[in-house]
Formats: sequence, structure tokens, C-alpha cells
Amino acid sequence: MQAEEGRKRVIIESVAPEIDAGQFPIKRIVGDTVVVEADVLTDGHDAISVVLQYRTEAGTQWTEVPMEPLVNDRWRGTFKVQELGRYRYTLLVWVDQFKSWSRDLAKRVEAGQDVTLDLLIGAGLVEAAGKRAPLIHAGWLRTFAEAMRAGGADGARQALSAELAALMYRHAERLVATKYEKELTVVVDRQRARFGAWYELFPRSASSSPGQHGTFKDVEARLPYIASMGFDVLYLPPIHPIGRSFRKGRNNSTDPTPDDPGSPWAIGSAEGGHKAIHPQLGTLEDFRHLVKSAAEYGIELALDIAFQCSPDHPYVTEHPEWFRRRPDGTIQYAENPPKKYQDIYPFDFETEHWRELWDELKSIVQFWADQGVRIFRVDNPHTKPFAFWEWLITEIKRDCPEAVFLAEAFTRPKVMYRLAKVGFTQSYNYFPWRNTRQELTQYLTELTQTQVREFFAANLWPNTPDILPEYLQYGGRPAFLTRLILAATLGPSYGIYGPPYELCENRPLAPDREEYLDSEKFEVRYWDVDRPDSLRQLISRVNQARRENTAFQSNHNLRFHAADNEQIIAYSKSNADESNQVLVVVNLDPHHKQSGFIDLPLDELGIDARQPYQAHDLLTDARYLWQGTHNYVELNPETVPAHIFVIRRRVRTEHDFDYYL
Amino acid sequence: MQAEEGRKRVIIESVAPEIDAGQFPIKRIVGDTVVVEADVLTDGHDAISVVLQYRTEAGTQWTEVPMEPLVNDRWRGTFKVQELGRYRYTLLVWVDQFKSWSRDLAKRVEAGQDVTLDLLIGAGLVEAAGKRAPLIHAGWLRTFAEAMRAGGADGARQALSAELAALMYRHAERLVATKYEKELTVVVDRQRARFGAWYELFPRSASSSPGQHGTFKDVEARLPYIASMGFDVLYLPPIHPIGRSFRKGRNNSTDPTPDDPGSPWAIGSAEGGHKAIHPQLGTLEDFRHLVKSAAEYGIELALDIAFQCSPDHPYVTEHPEWFRRRPDGTIQYAENPPKKYQDIYPFDFETEHWRELWDELKSIVQFWADQGVRIFRVDNPHTKPFAFWEWLITEIKRDCPEAVFLAEAFTRPKVMYRLAKVGFTQSYNYFPWRNTRQELTQYLTELTQTQVREFFAANLWPNTPDILPEYLQYGGRPAFLTRLILAATLGPSYGIYGPPYELCENRPLAPDREEYLDSEKFEVRYWDVDRPDSLRQLISRVNQARRENTAFQSNHNLRFHAADNEQIIAYSKSNADESNQVLVVVNLDPHHKQSGFIDLPLDELGIDARQPYQAHDLLTDARYLWQGTHNYVELNPETVPAHIFVIRRRVRTEHDFDYYL
Repeated sequence: MQAEEGRKRVIIESVAPEIDAGQFPIKRIVGDTVVVEADVLTDGHDAISVVLQYRTEAGTQWTEVPMEPLVNDRWRGTFKVQELGRYRYTLLVWVDQFKSWSRDLAKRVEAGQDVTLDLLIGAGLVEAAGKRAPLIHAGWLRTFAEAMRAGGADGARQALSAELAALMYRHAERLVATKYEKELTVVVDRQRARFGAWYELFPRSASSSPGQHGTFKDVEARLPYIASMGFDVLYLPPIHPIGRSFRKGRNNSTDPTPDDPGSPWAIGSAEGGHKAIHPQLGTLEDFRHLVKSAAEYGIELALDIAFQCSPDHPYVTEHPEWFRRRPDGTIQYAENPPKKYQDIYPFDFETEHWRELWDELKSIVQFWADQGVRIFRVDNPHTKPFAFWEWLITEIKRDCPEAVFLAEAFTRPKVMYRLAKVGFTQSYNYFPWRNTRQELTQYLTELTQTQVREFFAANLWPNTPDILPEYLQYGGRPAFLTRLILAATLGPSYGIYGPPYELCENRPLAPDREEYLDSEKFEVRYWDVDRPDSLRQLISRVNQARRENTAFQSNHNLRFHAADNEQIIAYSKSNADESNQVLVVVNLDPHHKQSGFIDLPLDELGIDARQPYQAHDLLTDARYLWQGTHNYVELNPETVPAHIFVIRRRVRTEHDFDYYL
Repeated sequence: MQAEEGRKRVIIESVAPEIDAGQFPIKRIVGDTVVVEADVLTDGHDAISVVLQYRTEAGTQWTEVPMEPLVNDRWRGTFKVQELGRYRYTLLVWVDQFKSWSRDLAKRVEAGQDVTLDLLIGAGLVEAAGKRAPLIHAGWLRTFAEAMRAGGADGARQALSAELAALMYRHAERLVATKYEKELTVVVDRQRARFGAWYELFPRSASSSPGQHGTFKDVEARLPYIASMGFDVLYLPPIHPIGRSFRKGRNNSTDPTPDDPGSPWAIGSAEGGHKAIHPQLGTLEDFRHLVKSAAEYGIELALDIAFQCSPDHPYVTEHPEWFRRRPDGTIQYAENPPKKYQDIYPFDFETEHWRELWDELKSIVQFWADQGVRIFRVDNPHTKPFAFWEWLITEIKRDCPEAVFLAEAFTRPKVMYRLAKVGFTQSYNYFPWRNTRQELTQYLTELTQTQVREFFAANLWPNTPDILPEYLQYGGRPAFLTRLILAATLGPSYGIYGPPYELCENRPLAPDREEYLDSEKFEVRYWDVDRPDSLRQLISRVNQARRENTAFQSNHNLRFHAADNEQIIAYSKSNADESNQVLVVVNLDPHHKQSGFIDLPLDELGIDARQPYQAHDLLTDARYLWQGTHNYVELNPETVPAHIFVIRRRVRTEHDFDYYL
């Protein structure tokens, strides 16, 4: 079987960025530049013209940008995404007869050949373009064609003019142009999707009086404290009524006292389900007020979306068809055999009524979006179908493109990445378990310097209510400082679960467990946030450094640097136009002072090796004058285990002195 | 928009081998095993079953092979291709309720839990499978279900039996199984597509009398000579009538004498075109006789397919619409401005009559296939559209799956690879310009140890009528020995252009040119193939080693090894079952003796480092007893610049001596 159009001679391949053959979108932030590259080939020696086409998903007209050849048949073009939502991009290529002809003409003229006949060929091409062009251009083209038909040196000069080249490009013969067979998608999010400092707290532990169940009003009272540390997002575990059946007691005991408040993730009781508020926290009105008050402090509220039910959830009686039933008529609770979680009923996503289930779950997210919530932290997304998430996130973002979804995908790597591909804006990840220099370098390089960065945005958390890593258990206060600085400077998005974090709470449930003793998941706790040993001051300095230095606000330029001491990690970042450059040096050993030499690739950093440059430490305000690639550092975990430097290339000299001249 | 079937929970990604998202087939040889891997994921903790499905393209029924999990959600399955032509393969995956259930049951039993209710759930699954099974299996399943309903230790034992697992796998519920969205293709060729030693000669220079125009009969007379060197394929430049207009004289002069025979690539004259035979070579009958005689020597004939015309080609008058016309009414000749090739008219593949042109060109290949030719060396394929080749090769191979197409694609790398993807069996490549150890290691690693090997098969030529590389010009006889051994042992397919090669002809057209002086392309030459300094003996030994050692017949296991002398390159190969292992060590310096130590990764080679092993040199028949990874070699370019070792792991000891016991 012959091709439909055998004259399409152009091949477009290895287009980048392109995720899984275009099955999934890449992600960008408003204002970002999308750099598109592709291999574009044709047979023989003809010249080709390559354009990058882009539009918003709603738009009907493509905007075109010419792509430029690099080397080895690779072409590059760029465009900026200015609007929230979705963009499309693709390529259009044609064999460019006029371009080939004029390239060859230049060589013939250079070789002193008679080009009379060639000019006639060219004039024919110009006249043909004239027929495709609007009147005014057609006139210009006719004039060019006449000069070419007249021949001679003037004909050749006009034939090779930039003006004619521009006109001919504009009115190129695109009849047998090749369009790339895919339209690729960009999801454009707002800045908070990439950059933000998160703070998680349990509202029920927010009371300023010990023994008191906290309320939304207590959380409001804590806003100045959270804002003073410089956090952008306040994330609350589930705020819904908590089930009573099989309720868990303190430290996950199956033998609760009547006063035990239960786990907030055991959602649903007689008081309501996922759209209701736990009565002890307050009312929906209180919640809306909290959202508004937080906004006044520049803080955005994030809610927890945990799609599971306590046995007392209204869905269980209203929609028994959404749950799996056992032969004895009871509903199948959650299990990880031989462990049983009888306080949790998972939804049965294999139910024949999956369409109704999907719709209802979507309505939950929509309900909270209607209350002004735009950030959702999704509990265990990897236990629900990928297709469900792809649908739900696309649906929500259609009307609400500023929505952000953080996946609590503590699961296998490919599952984690797939969830990002189907739409999650950000994801938890293996950062809690990456502690050594090699581990951190390898993992962050994978996340930021490979194709992963096109679809996966890590949110780095040194702790969560579920995870008290070994490093924090044994490293004391220096470990908390170190991990906070690593998270905040390695990740544009990071978060801590407080107040346990800033108060350096490090008692594990048992020596070999990475869970908290007396976890807030199962009881109300009281925290004295004004304790003098709090990390509050340092946190606020770190967050201030993040806000004032745009280099911290993305990860595309993360580079690790050599250090001759294995306990010292050094890395730099710069912003898009390289006007802001930061260098972070961290002592990973929480027990001992460490020192050594770090090596900076000055040429990559745009620093003249013959000139001094300034390293200004934003944690201590110390300023070091450095020169050359090799520089000494010494870090004491007992004071500050890290430098967060701004690198300033230019240092003042006598030439800057007023009286110098 | 919701998915059509929201309960399809399985994801299949990163399937390998898969070329450009399945757009192109992979290539294999009859008898090869295809190893397929894929990432297969689902949400949650359910077990999945993964099967690899394959069939011949003509077949309607899939054969299924269970795939096995590796690590990190990667699965692997294999199948053998036994027939020439095309195979398809794909994957089918389902969430396996019974497998999940029995995995969990085992854990519950292990933990000593009461499993009565679980056995009832399982019995339900078994009964459901019984309804899908044929009568006899249904009976067995019923018996299992009854035992499970009876409960107790026996019920659990039967539930966990391998017999039940096998039955349940066989009758699994596949209603919401996920089929991989693509069917991938394998092109299966015969062994000669991968393995063969080629010999190119100009028939017109095959006469045994100086000054005489050679004929097909002369070529027949030379068959014993070619066979004695061990070649498998005899490739002839174009054998068609040669044009007279603008004929080139000796050394490409534009001022020929009336006696100059012209270039065989200037195809077509009053005597005929691409389906005719140059009268001075003989008749079609003679040609058919040559094909048959060659076959008797185990040699297959390969023809040159050069789709271009001399101005005297009958097509020029019969089908002027297949050529581009200039404003003065003349036909556009080939050019690479400012160079002009007025003796060659290229076809205009952008003609409106491209369909007729394609059909005619296909009929040329078909014509020669009808004369018994199965191997085609295609001249400059990169100057004709990719789509044309994809169509032509697919069409020809449909009826003639044993056809082999060698692309003379001396062009840019991506164009070269694309031609392989669209169907060329083999390709010329950059081997003539890869001379140093680093160049050879890097290039052959790219060709054989990356995805390139799935679609691209290199045919390594140290020279061609167009290329007399610098290394051969300056390295004397040792250079010819070295490059022959490299080509023959690095490539399952390789070739030489003789007799100039075995006679070490090394005079360039000019000092800075890589073309032959007095090239046969433009004149009839006489060669005294019996010259005592011919490389004939060595070539025959090398080709014998290739035939007797299957390790040389593929390239999947090519491994380069360290040597402490930069002039020494060492590499090994093994066959599929590792029963044959060869090690080649070459001195790349044609001027000096070189010696040094080479390092062999004995564990990779399956050799016990504590035992001696034998390195048997097939060039000199010397046998070396080696032990350990580090071994000394010394190579003199004036004698033999290389070792071609067979490695024998087991060396005889006293235990093998008859009287030992």
C-alpha cells in the first residue's frame, strides 16, 4: 500500500519535551519558557523550514515561532506560557524550495558561475509565492521576480536579499508540509505549584491551654506564629467527623478509652462525612473564616483528601454498593494481611457503580474548592486507580486551574511517577530516607536533571505525622536543623509537620520504628511553641532567604559540587536569567564539626577565576571574600550546620571608591 | 469525560524492545529469542498476571507466555521467532483476584488466623472460574470449592495448592483485562541478514588478460578464488548499460577518450536501463548462470540498486515527467553546488506522478529478484524519500522475506538510523573513519550495546570503490591486515572491495583525497590476484574462524576490555548459550611492535580465576595457557598484528590422564 502523499519527505522525531510519546502533559509555571527540540530530517540536500506552533487549549489559532538548527539535525524553538491552564504545541516542517535554491545560488555566485538560468528558476518560485501572498506583498514579490528575470549582478543581489528571504518564508509553499503527528500538552500552574513552604498542624492540638481540644479559632490564633516563620501553606489533616466503630486509642491501640478522639483519617460518623466538619473543631462558617484570615497573612490553606470511610460514614448505609461485601454480609475493611484495619472501609473501585462513585468523590473536592480551598494533599493516592485521578484532577482543574494536588505517594518509584504523569501537581517522595551525600546527590539529580523534572515536582518533607526518620531520632537538634535546611534549599517546595518539628520532638514509638510516640494521629497534644529552644528563628531566616532569592524558587539549575570531606554536601542554584546565584554547604554529620575544601566550577557559575567574589551567608550574615575554585569551609552542628550563601560576582575595588579618579 | 471502563486499573509502560513508540519493527534472525520487558503497575496491593502474546503477522491466534516479575515493577517474558517474515507481540494484564486472595490467605494461615470466612470468599472465586471452564476443569474446580467451603486445615491446604493456582490462572477472569495499546512488530530475516563476509568486484576488471573488458564468464572463473578466501556474498556494482552523454573519463575527468568505459553508476543507454545488462558483460542468460554457479560455491550474488539515470536512459524520453525540468527545457542534472554532475539525472520524487515512479522502481527490484537475486546494495538511499523505501522494502519482502537490503547510507547519523528503521536490513556506516581504540570502542558500543542494535545492523567495510581511508594509504600492508581483522571480528557482517584490498592497493587520487587513483569506477583494471604478497591466505583464515565460531556471528555480547597500551584494543564475544567464546587483540599501530597487559573480567566470561584457561590463536594456531585477569600480549604488525583467540575454559590436568586413577 502506497502512502497517501508520497511527497511528504520530512521526518520529525525525538521531540522533547514529550512524556511517554505524548500521552501525558509536561508541567510549567505561568511565565516559564518552554524550550522545544526535535530531530528534523529529510532525504537529500534540500533545505527545510521548521516552525514551532503553540496555542492555549481553548484557542483555535496557532502562534508560530521559527525553530533554529543546532547541530546534527537537531532544531530548537521556544515559547512562553502566560496563562493558567493547558497549552498545546506541535511542529510544522516543509522542504523549502526557495531556501535550497538561494543557498545554492550563493555558492554558484561565489564560484563565479553563470546564474542566468538559475535566476529564472528562482523567479518562477518568487512568482508562485506572489500568487499566495496578499496584494501588497504580491507587488513586492513581482518586483523581485522582474529583477531576477533581468539577470546580471543586480538580479543575483536582489535574489539573495534578506527582504526577499523574509517574504518567501512568509509565503512559503506549505502544500506538502509535514505536521508532527502529535499535539503535545503543557499544563500551566501558578507559582505556588512549584514554590512554597508548607506547615502541617493538627487543629485539635492548636489550643493554647493544655488538655483542651483545639478549634479553627485556635488555629487562627496561631497564624501570626506560622506567618512569622515565613510559611506559605498551612495544611490540615482531615477536619471531618471521626468514626466511633473500631476507633483507635493512643499509640494506635485497639483498646481506646471513651475519651480518645480517634484518628482524623477514620472519616465519617453520624455527624456527617467528607463534606462535614468535626463538631469539636467548629463550624463551616469558622472554617471559611480561617481560610480568609490565613489569606490575610499570606498563607493559603491546604486540606487533606482521604478517600476512605469509617464504618460509621453515612455512605456505608446510603451507598453500600460502593463497598466490597464479604460472604457473611459484612463489609470488607482495610487489610494488609495479616494486619487488619477494622476502623477503615476502602471504597471498592471495581464496583459496577464506579461512575456514581467517581462523581461523588469529585463532588467532595468541588465542595471544598467552593469554600475557597485551592490546595489538596491527597492521602494514599496509590491505592485508587490511576484513571480515576487523571479524570478527577482534569475535571477540577478545568474550572479551577489554580488547584494544586499533592500526592502522598509513599510507594514504589514507578507508581509515584505515574501519579505525577496523570496529573498530581506535586508529590511526597523518598527525601525522608535520603541522608548521605551520595543518596542526596543521586536522588535530587534524578528528580531535577532528567526527564522526570518535566512531570514530577517533589515536595520535600523531613518529617510527617507518619514518619519520624531515624536520622532525626538520633541526631538531636543539629539533625533537625540540617534536614530543614536541606529540604528548604534542595526543594522549591518543602514542608514540615509542626510544632513537633521546630520543637525537635524525636521520641519514636519503639526503637526500631519510624513513628512518633504519643502521635497526634490518635490523641490531642499540647505544644509550647514559645519554648526558647525552638528552631523558629532559624526557620524564619531560611524561609526569608527562599523568598528573597529567586534561585531557590525552581530546581532546573541545581548543581552539586565536589567537596573533599564526605560529610559535607555543596550545591548551587540560579534563577532563569542567572541574576541570582546561591550556594549551599551543609555538614551532614549531626555529631561533629566538619571542615574541608569545596570545588566550584567557576566557569559554569559565570565567575572570573582571576577576580575575587563574595559569598554572603544569609544565616549568619557573614561575608567571605573568595577567589578561585577551591575554598575552605568549616561547619559546627552545635551552632549552625550550614552556609546558605548568595554569590556576588562583583566585589568592590578601588575603582568604586569615590575619590579614585 | 469519564473513562469508558473505569475499572481497568493496570498500567503498562516502558515496553522494550519498542522503537519510536512502536512505529518501527525490531529486527531478529530466524531462531532468535525475543526478550520482552515492561513496567506493569496497578494501584493498591492487588496481585496482577501479565502475559506476553505473540503471533506471526499472518496468524490470527495469539500464543501466550506468562511474564515473570523482576524487580521494581519490571516484568520479563520471551519467545522464539521461527519463521521468516513478520511477527507481532503485545501484552495482556489483569488484576488477578485469586492470586491476591491466595497470597493473603497464606499470610493469614501463617499468622494462625481463623480463615473460615476467607475460604468462603475463595470458594466463590473458584466457583466463578468453574463457570468459565470447560466441563472437565469445571468438575475439578467444583471439588476444590467444596473442600474450601468445608473449611479447616484441609480446605486451606487445597486452596493453596499449585494445582488450583494453575487451574485458576488458566480460567482467570479477564473481563477487565488491559491490553497494551500497541502491537509491536518483529521483522525476522534469515541468517545472512546478520552474518556474512562480502566481496565486491567490478566484473569488467575480472578478466585474466590485461586490457580485456571482463565478463560474467570471467567472474565465474574467479569464483573458486573468492570461495577459497571464504566469502559468502559477491556484490557487483551496476551491471546495466552505461550512458554516453557527459560520460566521465579516467580519474573522473570530464574529457573522456572514446574508449573510456564510463561509470557503471551512469545507468542507461540506447541498449536499455535498469532491467538491461551492459552488453560487454554478457547476456541475461550469462547473468543467471553466474548466479547459479556462485550458489554452487556457497556464494550469493548481490546487486547494486542505484536509482538514477544517465541522460541516455530510456526513461528520460519515455517518462520525462519523472525528472525536474529547468526553464530552458533541459532536465535538471545532479548537483552539489558549485559541483555539477551532468552525467546523472536524479529522479524527481516530488513529481505529481510519484505513484507511477514508485511502481516502476519497485518493478526493477522485482525484476532482479525474479532472476534469483536476493541481496541488494542500495546506492545513496538517503537522497530518496524515507516513505518510498519503507514502502518498497515492505512490498518486496512481503513476497520475498529472504531479501536483504544494504543501505549505502554514508550520511548524517540520524538519517542513517532512520533508513534502518524504515526497513534497510544492513547499512554502511562510519567504520572506515574509526581507527583509534577510543573511536572504535565508542562507536561499536553505540551500535551493539544500545537500542540501536534493535533496528540497525552495521556492515563494516574497510574500503569501498569510493573510499580509500587515510589509515590504509599510510599504514602499508599491516594497516590492511589490521583493518580487515577489525572489520571481520567486530562485525558479523563485513566486506572488502577487492582485488585492491587483498593486493593492498593504496595510491590515492591526490594526497588529501580518500579516493583511489585510477579508480575502477572510470576504467577497466587488471589485477594479478596470484601475487605472492596478497592477503588472500590471511583472509581465508579469518573467514574460517568466523564460520567455525558462532560467537562471531552476532554482536549482542561484544565487550571491550582494558589494555594498558593505548595502541592495543581487546574485545570478546560469545554466542547465545556462551558455549563459544572468542577474544580478539589487535595492535592498532601499523608501524611498531606493541606489547602490554590486557585485563579480562573473568567472572563475566564465566572463567574460574583460580584455574588456568587456554587462549588458542586461530591465526597462528599458537596456544597460550593463561591464568587470572592480567595477561601479556605482544603484537608485531610486520608479521600478524592481531590475536584471534578461542577461549577454552577447561584445561587438561592430571585428572584427564588415562592412568591417573
